[in-house]
Amino acid sequence: MSEIQAQRGSKRKTQRQGPGRPEGVSNSHERILKAAEDLFSKKGYSGTSLREIGEKCRVTTALITYYFKSKESLLETIVLRIGEKLEQQRLKHLADLKEQNGPVSVRNIVRALILPLMGMPDTPATRRFMRIQSWLHSEPEPFAFQLRAKLYEKTNEKYIQALSEALPHLSKKTIYWRFMLTVGCYLYASSDTHRLSQMSNKLCNPDDLEELLDELTDFICGGLAAESTARSQ
Amino acid sequence: MSEIQAQRGSKRKTQRQGPGRPEGVSNSHERILKAAEDLFSKKGYSGTSLREIGEKCRVTTALITYYFKSKESLLETIVLRIGEKLEQQRLKHLADLKEQNGPVSVRNIVRALILPLMGMPDTPATRRFMRIQSWLHSEPEPFAFQLRAKLYEKTNEKYIQALSEALPHLSKKTIYWRFMLTVGCYLYASSDTHRLSQMSNKLCNPDDLEELLDELTDFICGGLAAESTARSQ
Repeated sequence: MSEIQAQRGSKRKTQRQGPGRPEGVSNSHERILKAAEDLFSKKGYSGTSLREIGEKCRVTTALITYYFKSKESLLETIVLRIGEKLEQQRLKHLADLKEQNGPVSVRNIVRALILPLMGMPDTPATRRFMRIQSWLHSEPEPFAFQLRAKLYEKTNEKYIQALSEALPHLSKKTIYWRFMLTVGCYLYASSDTHRLSQMSNKLCNPDDLEELLDELTDFICGGLAAESTARSQ
Repeated sequence: MSEIQAQRGSKRKTQRQGPGRPEGVSNSHERILKAAEDLFSKKGYSGTSLREIGEKCRVTTALITYYFKSKESLLETIVLRIGEKLEQQRLKHLADLKEQNGPVSVRNIVRALILPLMGMPDTPATRRFMRIQSWLHSEPEPFAFQLRAKLYEKTNEKYIQALSEALPHLSKKTIYWRFMLTVGCYLYASSDTHRLSQMSNKLCNPDDLEELLDELTDFICGGLAAESTARSQ
Protein backbone atom coordinates (compact mmCIF):
# COMPACT_ATOMS: atom_id res chain seq x y z
CA MET A 1 0.00 0.00 0.00
CA SER A 2 1.28 3.51 -0.76
CA GLU A 3 1.50 6.23 1.87
CA ILE A 4 -1.17 8.12 -0.03
CA GLN A 5 -3.60 5.25 0.09
CA ALA A 6 -2.78 4.62 3.73
CA GLN A 7 -3.54 8.13 4.86
CA ARG A 8 -6.67 8.70 2.80
CA GLY A 9 -8.76 9.14 5.96
CA SER A 10 -6.71 12.09 7.16
CA LYS A 11 -8.54 15.38 6.72
CA ARG A 12 -6.00 17.91 7.99
CA LYS A 13 -3.51 19.27 5.50
CA THR A 14 0.01 20.39 6.18
CA GLN A 15 2.93 21.48 4.05
CA ARG A 16 4.62 18.92 1.88
CA GLN A 17 7.91 18.23 3.63
CA GLY A 18 9.89 16.10 1.26
CA PRO A 19 9.83 14.48 -2.13
CA GLY A 20 7.04 11.98 -2.41
CA ARG A 21 5.81 12.78 1.07
CA PRO A 22 2.01 12.90 1.02
CA GLU A 23 0.09 15.78 2.48
CA GLY A 24 -0.90 15.44 6.11
CA VAL A 25 1.60 12.73 6.91
CA SER A 26 4.01 14.83 8.94
CA ASN A 27 1.52 15.70 11.63
CA SER A 28 -0.69 12.66 11.44
CA HIS A 29 2.16 10.65 12.98
CA GLU A 30 2.06 12.88 16.05
CA ARG A 31 -1.75 13.00 16.08
CA ILE A 32 -1.91 9.20 16.14
CA LEU A 33 0.49 9.11 19.09
CA LYS A 34 -1.55 11.69 20.99
CA ALA A 35 -4.88 9.99 20.34
CA ALA A 36 -3.45 6.60 21.29
CA GLU A 37 -1.87 7.96 24.46
CA ASP A 38 -5.17 9.49 25.48
CA LEU A 39 -7.20 6.34 24.81
CA PHE A 40 -4.67 3.93 26.32
CA SER A 41 -4.55 6.04 29.48
CA LYS A 42 -8.34 6.07 29.80
CA LYS A 43 -9.29 2.58 28.69
CA GLY A 44 -6.15 0.52 28.93
CA TYR A 45 -4.46 -1.38 26.14
CA SER A 46 -6.96 -4.24 25.79
CA GLY A 47 -9.86 -1.78 25.92
CA THR A 48 -8.64 0.35 23.02
CA SER A 49 -8.89 -0.60 19.34
CA LEU A 50 -6.95 0.81 16.40
CA ARG A 51 -10.32 1.76 14.90
CA GLU A 52 -11.10 4.01 17.88
CA ILE A 53 -7.66 5.59 17.73
CA GLY A 54 -8.19 6.28 14.03
CA GLU A 55 -11.62 7.78 14.63
CA LYS A 56 -10.30 10.04 17.35
CA CYS A 57 -7.56 11.57 15.22
CA ARG A 58 -9.36 11.17 11.91
CA VAL A 59 -6.93 8.88 10.10
CA THR A 60 -7.49 5.43 8.67
CA THR A 61 -6.49 2.27 10.50
CA ALA A 62 -4.29 1.57 7.50
CA LEU A 63 -2.27 4.72 8.13
CA ILE A 64 -1.75 3.72 11.75
CA THR A 65 -0.42 0.31 10.77
CA TYR A 66 1.66 1.95 8.03
CA TYR A 67 3.49 4.00 10.66
CA PHE A 68 3.41 1.73 13.68
CA LYS A 69 2.83 -1.78 12.33
CA SER A 70 0.57 -2.88 15.19
CA LYS A 71 -1.25 -1.77 18.34
CA GLU A 72 1.53 -3.39 20.36
CA SER A 73 4.30 -1.39 18.77
CA LEU A 74 2.22 1.77 19.01
CA LEU A 75 1.97 1.28 22.78
CA GLU A 76 5.68 0.47 22.89
CA THR A 77 6.57 3.76 21.16
CA ILE A 78 4.44 5.71 23.65
CA VAL A 79 5.78 3.94 26.73
CA LEU A 80 9.42 4.09 25.68
CA ARG A 81 9.53 7.76 24.82
CA ILE A 82 8.91 8.80 28.43
CA GLY A 83 9.93 5.59 30.15
CA GLU A 84 13.47 5.45 28.79
CA LYS A 85 14.28 8.91 30.15
CA LEU A 86 13.00 7.87 33.57
CA GLU A 87 15.10 4.72 33.60
CA GLN A 88 18.21 6.63 32.60
CA GLN A 89 17.66 9.00 35.52
CA ARG A 90 17.20 6.08 37.91
CA LEU A 91 20.44 4.51 36.75
CA LYS A 92 22.28 7.81 36.99
CA HIS A 93 21.05 8.51 40.54
CA LEU A 94 22.20 5.06 41.61
CA ALA A 95 25.59 5.44 39.96
CA ASP A 96 26.01 8.82 41.70
CA LEU A 97 25.30 7.18 45.08
CA LYS A 98 27.89 4.51 44.48
CA GLU A 99 30.54 7.10 43.69
CA GLN A 100 30.21 8.55 47.17
CA ASN A 101 32.39 7.13 49.91
CA GLY A 102 30.96 4.62 52.34
CA PRO A 103 27.99 2.26 52.20
CA VAL A 104 24.83 3.29 50.40
CA SER A 105 21.76 3.45 52.67
CA VAL A 106 18.44 1.79 51.86
CA ARG A 107 16.78 5.20 52.13
CA ASN A 108 19.02 6.71 49.46
CA ILE A 109 18.43 3.76 47.14
CA VAL A 110 14.67 4.15 47.54
CA ARG A 111 14.82 7.87 46.84
CA ALA A 112 16.97 7.30 43.75
CA LEU A 113 14.30 4.91 42.47
CA ILE A 114 11.26 7.03 43.27
CA LEU A 115 12.43 10.59 42.73
CA PRO A 116 12.53 10.53 38.91
CA LEU A 117 8.84 9.57 38.77
CA MET A 118 7.81 11.97 41.51
CA GLY A 119 9.96 14.70 40.02
CA MET A 120 8.08 14.76 36.73
CA PRO A 121 6.14 17.98 36.24
CA ASP A 122 2.53 17.56 37.30
CA THR A 123 0.95 17.94 33.86
CA PRO A 124 -1.85 16.05 32.10
CA ALA A 125 0.87 14.31 30.04
CA THR A 126 2.56 13.04 33.21
CA ARG A 127 -0.74 11.81 34.60
CA ARG A 128 -1.43 10.00 31.32
CA PHE A 129 1.99 8.37 31.44
CA MET A 130 1.48 7.26 35.06
CA ARG A 131 -1.90 5.83 34.18
CA ILE A 132 -0.53 3.95 31.14
CA GLN A 133 2.30 2.63 33.31
CA SER A 134 -0.24 1.45 35.84
CA TRP A 135 -2.34 -0.31 33.13
CA LEU A 136 0.81 -1.84 31.72
CA HIS A 137 1.53 -3.43 35.07
CA SER A 138 -1.92 -4.99 35.31
CA GLU A 139 -1.94 -6.21 31.71
CA PRO A 140 -1.68 -10.00 31.46
CA GLU A 141 -0.65 -10.11 27.79
CA PRO A 142 2.85 -11.59 27.26
CA PHE A 143 3.92 -8.62 25.17
CA ALA A 144 3.23 -6.30 28.15
CA PHE A 145 5.67 -8.31 30.20
CA GLN A 146 8.22 -8.17 27.37
CA LEU A 147 7.83 -4.42 27.12
CA ARG A 148 8.28 -3.99 30.86
CA ALA A 149 11.29 -6.29 30.78
CA LYS A 150 12.80 -4.25 27.94
CA LEU A 151 12.23 -1.01 29.81
CA TYR A 152 13.02 -2.01 33.39
CA GLU A 153 15.31 -5.04 33.25
CA LYS A 154 18.59 -3.20 33.56
CA THR A 155 17.32 -0.85 36.29
CA ASN A 156 15.78 -3.72 38.25
CA GLU A 157 19.01 -5.67 38.15
CA LYS A 158 21.11 -2.75 39.38
CA TYR A 159 18.68 -1.86 42.17
CA ILE A 160 18.38 -5.44 43.34
CA GLN A 161 22.16 -5.61 43.48
CA ALA A 162 22.34 -2.37 45.48
CA LEU A 163 19.64 -3.55 47.91
CA SER A 164 21.45 -6.87 48.40
CA GLU A 165 24.57 -4.98 49.40
CA ALA A 166 22.69 -2.63 51.72
CA LEU A 167 20.75 -5.49 53.35
CA PRO A 168 23.26 -8.34 53.50
CA HIS A 169 21.29 -10.28 56.15
CA LEU A 170 18.41 -10.90 53.72
CA SER A 171 18.31 -13.74 51.20
CA LYS A 172 18.32 -12.89 47.51
CA LYS A 173 14.85 -14.38 47.33
CA THR A 174 13.52 -11.98 49.96
CA ILE A 175 15.22 -9.07 48.20
CA TYR A 176 13.37 -9.94 44.98
CA TRP A 177 10.08 -10.17 46.82
CA ARG A 178 10.58 -6.85 48.53
CA PHE A 179 11.66 -5.12 45.35
CA MET A 180 8.47 -6.31 43.66
CA LEU A 181 6.37 -5.07 46.59
CA THR A 182 8.17 -1.72 46.41
CA VAL A 183 7.10 -1.40 42.79
CA GLY A 184 3.51 -2.32 43.72
CA CYS A 185 3.53 0.38 46.40
CA TYR A 186 4.73 3.24 44.29
CA LEU A 187 2.60 2.26 41.31
CA TYR A 188 -0.50 2.35 43.46
CA ALA A 189 0.54 5.51 45.28
CA SER A 190 1.28 7.35 42.05
CA SER A 191 -1.97 6.32 40.37
CA ASP A 192 -4.98 8.51 41.07
CA THR A 193 -7.45 5.75 41.76
CA HIS A 194 -6.91 5.08 45.45
CA ARG A 195 -8.88 8.19 46.41
CA LEU A 196 -6.92 8.57 49.60
CA SER A 197 -8.05 12.14 49.94
CA GLN A 198 -11.72 11.18 50.15
CA MET A 199 -11.06 8.07 52.21
CA SER A 200 -9.29 10.16 54.83
CA ASN A 201 -11.71 13.10 54.77
CA LYS A 202 -8.96 15.24 53.24
CA LEU A 203 -6.45 14.51 56.02
CA CYS A 204 -4.12 13.21 53.29
CA ASN A 205 -3.26 15.06 50.13
CA PRO A 206 -1.69 12.82 47.47
CA ASP A 207 -1.42 15.85 45.16
CA ASP A 208 1.21 17.22 47.53
CA LEU A 209 4.27 15.54 46.08
CA GLU A 210 6.40 16.19 49.16
CA GLU A 211 3.85 14.48 51.38
CA LEU A 212 3.56 11.58 48.96
CA LEU A 213 7.31 11.16 48.72
CA ASP A 214 7.80 11.24 52.50
CA GLU A 215 5.06 8.76 53.28
CA LEU A 216 6.01 6.43 50.45
CA THR A 217 9.71 6.46 51.36
CA ASP A 218 9.06 5.76 55.06
CA PHE A 219 6.76 2.85 54.30
CA ILE A 220 8.99 1.28 51.66
CA CYS A 221 12.16 1.65 53.75
CA GLY A 222 10.39 0.01 56.70
CA GLY A 223 9.24 -2.82 54.47
CA LEU A 224 12.61 -3.37 52.84
CA ALA A 225 14.52 -3.43 56.11
CA ALA A 226 11.99 -5.51 58.07
CA GLU A 227 13.11 -8.60 59.90
CA SER A 228 12.48 -11.70 57.81
CA THR A 229 10.34 -14.44 59.30
CA ALA A 230 9.87 -16.33 56.02
CA ARG A 231 9.87 -20.08 56.66
CA SER A 232 11.37 -21.14 53.32
CA GLN A 233 14.66 -19.57 52.23
CA MET B 1 -40.15 -4.42 26.21
CA SER B 2 -41.36 -7.88 27.19
CA GLU B 3 -39.10 -10.57 28.57
CA ILE B 4 -39.71 -12.56 25.44
CA GLN B 5 -38.54 -9.75 23.20
CA ALA B 6 -35.56 -9.14 25.45
CA GLN B 7 -34.26 -12.68 25.28
CA ARG B 8 -34.86 -13.29 21.61
CA GLY B 9 -31.11 -13.71 20.99
CA SER B 10 -30.83 -16.61 23.43
CA LYS B 11 -30.45 -19.92 21.63
CA ARG B 12 -30.37 -22.38 24.50
CA LYS B 13 -33.65 -23.68 25.77
CA THR B 14 -34.49 -24.74 29.29
CA GLN B 15 -37.66 -25.78 31.03
CA ARG B 16 -40.31 -23.20 31.69
CA GLN B 17 -40.06 -22.50 35.41
CA GLY B 18 -43.04 -20.33 36.20
CA PRO B 19 -46.05 -18.67 34.72
CA GLY B 20 -45.09 -16.21 32.03
CA ARG B 21 -41.39 -17.07 32.35
CA PRO B 22 -39.86 -17.20 28.90
CA GLU B 23 -37.80 -20.15 27.81
CA GLY B 24 -34.06 -19.91 28.41
CA VAL B 25 -34.30 -17.18 31.00
CA SER B 26 -33.38 -19.23 34.06
CA ASN B 27 -29.91 -20.12 32.85
CA SER B 28 -29.22 -17.09 30.70
CA HIS B 29 -28.97 -15.02 33.90
CA GLU B 30 -26.08 -17.20 35.07
CA ARG B 31 -24.54 -17.37 31.58
CA ILE B 32 -24.48 -13.58 31.38
CA LEU B 33 -22.72 -13.41 34.74
CA LYS B 34 -20.12 -15.96 33.67
CA ALA B 35 -19.44 -14.32 30.32
CA ALA B 36 -19.18 -10.89 31.94
CA GLU B 37 -16.86 -12.17 34.67
CA ASP B 38 -14.60 -13.73 32.07
CA LEU B 39 -14.46 -10.61 29.87
CA PHE B 40 -14.10 -8.13 32.75
CA SER B 41 -11.23 -10.20 34.14
CA LYS B 42 -9.43 -10.26 30.79
CA LYS B 43 -10.14 -6.80 29.39
CA GLY B 44 -11.17 -4.69 32.35
CA TYR B 45 -14.42 -2.82 32.76
CA SER B 46 -13.79 -0.02 30.25
CA GLY B 47 -12.51 -2.51 27.70
CA THR B 48 -15.63 -4.68 27.73
CA SER B 49 -18.91 -3.81 26.03
CA LEU B 50 -22.37 -5.25 26.68
CA ARG B 51 -22.41 -6.27 23.04
CA GLU B 52 -19.32 -8.47 23.51
CA ILE B 53 -20.80 -10.02 26.65
CA GLY B 54 -23.99 -10.78 24.72
CA GLU B 55 -22.05 -12.31 21.82
CA LYS B 56 -20.04 -14.49 24.18
CA CYS B 57 -23.06 -16.03 25.88
CA ARG B 58 -25.42 -15.74 22.92
CA VAL B 59 -28.06 -13.43 24.38
CA THR B 60 -29.19 -10.02 23.21
CA THR B 61 -27.94 -6.82 24.80
CA ALA B 62 -31.58 -6.15 25.61
CA LEU B 63 -31.76 -9.27 27.78
CA ILE B 64 -28.64 -8.19 29.66
CA THR B 65 -30.12 -4.80 30.44
CA TYR B 66 -33.43 -6.46 31.30
CA TYR B 67 -31.71 -8.43 34.05
CA PHE B 68 -28.93 -6.09 35.14
CA LYS B 69 -30.01 -2.62 34.01
CA SER B 70 -26.49 -1.50 33.03
CA LYS B 71 -22.88 -2.57 32.62
CA GLU B 72 -22.13 -0.87 35.94
CA SER B 73 -24.66 -2.85 37.90
CA LEU B 74 -23.57 -6.05 36.15
CA LEU B 75 -20.03 -5.47 37.40
CA GLU B 76 -21.38 -4.62 40.84
CA THR B 77 -23.28 -7.92 41.03
CA ILE B 78 -20.13 -9.85 40.11
CA VAL B 79 -17.86 -8.00 42.52
CA LEU B 80 -20.25 -8.12 45.45
CA ARG B 81 -21.02 -11.80 45.31
CA ILE B 82 -17.46 -12.78 46.16
CA GLY B 83 -16.32 -9.51 47.71
CA GLU B 84 -18.95 -9.35 50.43
CA LYS B 85 -17.97 -12.75 51.78
CA LEU B 86 -14.33 -11.67 51.94
CA GLU B 87 -15.18 -8.48 53.80
CA GLN B 88 -17.30 -10.38 56.32
CA GLN B 89 -14.35 -12.68 57.01
CA ARG B 90 -12.02 -9.73 57.46
CA LEU B 91 -14.39 -8.12 59.95
CA LYS B 92 -14.84 -11.40 61.81
CA HIS B 93 -11.08 -12.03 62.09
CA LEU B 94 -10.59 -8.54 63.49
CA ALA B 95 -13.46 -8.91 65.96
CA ASP B 96 -11.95 -12.23 67.12
CA LEU B 97 -8.60 -10.54 67.74
CA LYS B 98 -10.22 -7.84 69.84
CA GLU B 99 -11.92 -10.39 72.03
CA GLN B 100 -8.58 -11.76 73.13
CA ASN B 101 -6.92 -10.25 76.17
CA GLY B 102 -4.15 -7.71 75.76
CA PRO B 103 -3.19 -5.39 72.94
CA VAL B 104 -3.57 -6.49 69.33
CA SER B 105 -0.29 -6.66 67.40
CA VAL B 106 0.26 -5.07 63.97
CA ARG B 107 1.20 -8.49 62.64
CA ASN B 108 -2.10 -10.03 63.68
CA ILE B 109 -4.05 -7.15 62.16
CA VAL B 110 -2.21 -7.59 58.87
CA ARG B 111 -2.85 -11.33 58.82
CA ALA B 112 -6.55 -10.80 59.56
CA LEU B 113 -6.71 -8.49 56.55
CA ILE B 114 -4.74 -10.63 54.13
CA LEU B 115 -5.64 -14.20 55.07
CA PRO B 116 -9.19 -14.23 53.66
CA LEU B 117 -7.88 -13.32 50.20
CA MET B 118 -4.92 -15.67 50.38
CA GLY B 119 -7.09 -18.42 51.82
CA MET B 120 -9.37 -18.57 48.81
CA PRO B 121 -9.02 -21.83 46.88
CA ASP B 122 -6.65 -21.44 43.95
CA THR B 123 -9.19 -21.92 41.16
CA PRO B 124 -9.74 -20.10 37.86
CA ALA B 125 -12.72 -18.38 39.53
CA THR B 126 -10.48 -17.01 42.30
CA ARG B 127 -7.92 -15.79 39.78
CA ARG B 128 -10.71 -14.05 37.82
CA PHE B 129 -11.96 -12.37 40.98
CA MET B 130 -8.44 -11.20 41.90
CA ARG B 131 -7.95 -9.84 38.41
CA ILE B 132 -11.30 -8.01 38.43
CA GLN B 133 -10.44 -6.59 41.84
CA SER B 134 -7.13 -5.40 40.48
CA TRP B 135 -8.82 -3.74 37.46
CA LEU B 136 -11.38 -2.19 39.77
CA HIS B 137 -8.60 -0.52 41.71
CA SER B 138 -7.05 0.99 38.59
CA GLU B 139 -10.38 2.13 37.14
CA PRO B 140 -10.76 5.91 37.18
CA GLU B 141 -14.55 5.97 36.69
CA PRO B 142 -16.43 7.48 39.68
CA PHE B 143 -18.73 4.48 39.89
CA ALA B 144 -15.70 2.21 40.47
CA PHE B 145 -14.79 4.31 43.47
CA GLN B 146 -18.39 4.15 44.72
CA LEU B 147 -18.42 0.39 44.35
CA ARG B 148 -15.13 0.05 46.23
CA ALA B 149 -16.44 2.39 48.92
CA LYS B 150 -19.62 0.32 49.24
CA LEU B 151 -17.63 -2.89 49.52
CA TYR B 152 -14.67 -1.81 51.63
CA GLU B 153 -15.74 1.26 53.62
CA LYS B 154 -16.72 -0.51 56.80
CA THR B 155 -13.68 -2.82 56.77
CA ASN B 156 -11.30 0.06 56.07
CA GLU B 157 -12.70 2.06 58.95
CA LYS B 158 -12.35 -0.79 61.44
CA TYR B 159 -8.83 -1.66 60.32
CA ILE B 160 -7.67 1.94 60.41
CA GLN B 161 -9.04 2.19 63.94
CA ALA B 162 -7.22 -1.00 64.96
CA LEU B 163 -3.95 0.20 63.41
CA SER B 164 -4.25 3.56 65.17
CA GLU B 165 -4.54 1.73 68.49
CA ALA B 166 -1.63 -0.59 67.72
CA LEU B 167 0.59 2.27 66.52
CA PRO B 168 -0.29 5.18 68.83
CA HIS B 169 2.88 7.15 67.99
CA LEU B 170 1.76 7.66 64.38
CA SER B 171 -0.56 10.44 63.24
CA LYS B 172 -3.94 9.50 61.80
CA LYS B 173 -2.76 10.93 58.51
CA THR B 174 0.21 8.56 58.38
CA ILE B 175 -2.03 5.64 59.35
CA TYR B 176 -4.27 6.41 56.34
CA TRP B 177 -1.28 6.62 54.02
CA ARG B 178 0.13 3.35 55.24
CA PHE B 179 -3.17 1.57 55.04
CA MET B 180 -3.52 2.65 51.40
CA LEU B 181 0.04 1.46 50.65
CA THR B 182 -0.77 -1.87 52.31
CA VAL B 183 -3.68 -2.28 49.92
CA GLY B 184 -1.43 -1.40 46.96
CA CYS B 185 1.07 -4.04 48.10
CA TYR B 186 -1.30 -6.92 48.43
CA LEU B 187 -3.21 -6.07 45.28
CA TYR B 188 -0.02 -6.17 43.29
CA ALA B 189 1.30 -9.26 45.05
CA SER B 190 -1.93 -11.16 44.51
CA SER B 191 -2.22 -10.22 40.84
CA ASP B 192 -0.37 -12.44 38.38
CA THR B 193 1.22 -9.70 36.34
CA HIS B 194 4.38 -8.95 38.27
CA ARG B 195 6.10 -12.06 36.88
CA LEU B 196 8.27 -12.32 39.96
CA SER B 197 9.06 -15.90 39.15
CA GLN B 198 10.68 -15.01 35.82
CA MET B 199 12.28 -11.84 37.18
CA SER B 200 14.03 -13.83 39.88
CA ASN B 201 14.96 -16.82 37.69
CA LYS B 202 12.50 -18.93 39.68
CA LEU B 203 14.07 -18.09 43.05
CA CYS B 204 10.63 -16.81 44.10
CA ASN B 205 7.40 -18.73 43.70
CA PRO B 206 4.30 -16.54 44.04
CA ASP B 207 2.12 -19.62 43.46
CA ASP B 208 3.30 -20.91 46.84
CA LEU B 209 0.73 -19.21 49.04
CA GLU B 210 2.74 -19.74 52.23
CA GLU B 211 5.75 -18.01 50.70
CA LEU B 212 3.58 -15.19 49.40
CA LEU B 213 1.89 -14.70 52.76
CA ASP B 214 5.17 -14.68 54.70
CA GLU B 215 6.92 -12.23 52.42
CA LEU B 216 3.92 -9.94 52.13
CA THR B 217 3.29 -9.90 55.88
CA ASP B 218 6.93 -9.12 56.72
CA PHE B 219 7.10 -6.26 54.23
CA ILE B 220 3.77 -4.73 55.21
CA CYS B 221 4.44 -5.00 58.95
CA GLY B 222 7.82 -3.31 58.46
CA GLY B 223 6.18 -0.55 56.43
CA LEU B 224 3.35 0.01 58.89
CA ALA B 225 5.59 0.17 61.93
CA ALA B 226 8.37 2.27 60.32
CA GLU B 227 9.56 5.42 61.99
CA SER B 228 7.83 8.46 60.52
CA THR B 229 9.98 11.22 59.07
CA ALA B 230 7.12 12.99 57.29
CA ARG B 231 7.65 16.74 57.45
CA SER B 232 3.97 17.74 57.50
CA GLN B 233 1.69 16.21 60.13
